[in-house]
Amino acid sequence: MSTIRHRIGVRNAAPQTVYDALATIDGLAGWWAVDTSGDPAVDGVIAFRFSTGGFDMLVRELVPAKSVRWEVVDGPEEWIGTEVSFELRQEDGFTVVLFEHRGWTEPVEFMYHCSTKWASFLLSLKELLETGAGRPDPHDLRISDWH
Amino acid sequence: MSTIRHRIGVRNAAPQTVYDALATIDGLAGWWAVDTSGDPAVDGVIAFRFSTGGFDMLVRELVPAKSVRWEVVDGPEEWIGTEVSFELRQEDGFTVVLFEHRGWTEPVEFMYHCSTKWASFLLSLKELLETGAGRPDPHDLRISDWH
Repeated sequence: MSTIRHRIGVRNAAPQTVYDALATIDGLAGWWAVDTSGDPAVDGVIAFRFSTGGFDMLVRELVPAKSVRWEVVDGPEEWIGTEVSFELRQEDGFTVVLFEHRGWTEPVEFMYHCSTKWASFLLSLKELLETGAGRPDPHDLRISDWH
Repeated sequence: MSTIRHRIGVRNAAPQTVYDALATIDGLAGWWAVDTSGDPAVDGVIAFRFSTGGFDMLVRELVPAKSVRWEVVDGPEEWIGTEVSFELRQEDGFTVVLFEHRGWTEPVEFMYHCSTKWASFLLSLKELLETGAGRPDPHDLRISDWH
C-alpha cells in the first residue's frame, strides 16, 4: 500500500475556519471543484465533478476544528476504496493541515500525478483562506498533459 | 521505507532542455536554490543552500535527456542516505518528469512538508522552462510555518 502525504500551514485562520472549508459544500467548491454537491454530513456522499472526471466521497468522520476523513466510493478505478484525510492543529499563527491519501495498491504513474495535483489543490485551499480566492477546477493550475 | 512521488509535464520543452535544468549549476539555481554550487558531473557533489538550511547531493547517475539521480550526503538527518531521481520522457508535446525521493525510514511530519515543498519546486522548474523565470529559494512560495 502506498500513501500520498502533504503538509501546509494556513496563516491567520483558526482551525474551525479551515475545517469549514473541508466540511461544507461551499467551502469545498472554493478550492477543489466548483461543481461540488451532495450531503457533507457523516455517512453522506459528496460528489466532486472535474473537467477530467469525478469522485464520490463517503464522509467517514468529522471532528469540528480537528479532522475530516472520506472514503472514495466512486471515481477512477485506482481511487475506489482509498481514504483521504485532513488533520488540523494550531501552531505559531498557522493552522497546520496534515493530508493523507492512503490505500493505493500500487504506486502507478497516476499516483505520481495525483500527488502533485493534491499539493496544488492544498495550496489552493491555503490561497482561498488567506486571500479570499482559491483555484478550484476548472480554474486550477494545469500541471501536465494529464491536466 | 517511504517515498515521495510527483509527476509534472513541461510544455514545449525537449527532454534535453529539461535535463539541462537538472544537470547544470545554472539550471538548478533557476528553480531550486539560487545558492547552488559544486561539481554537477557523476561522482561530483552539488551544494544547495537555502534560507532554512542546505543539502549536499552526490551525483550518482546522469543519462542525457533521460534521467538524473542523486544521493543525499549531507543535510537534515532524515535526508541523509536518501535518493532523489528525475526520469524524463516526451509525450504529447510535453516532457514528462517523474520524480522520486526514496528511502525515508519513517513517514515523519517533515516528510509531509517536503512532499508539498517538492511539488512547489517542481512547478517552479516547469515555470522556469515555460516562462523563463522560476521561483528558486529565496523567492520560493512559503507553504507553512516550516517555510
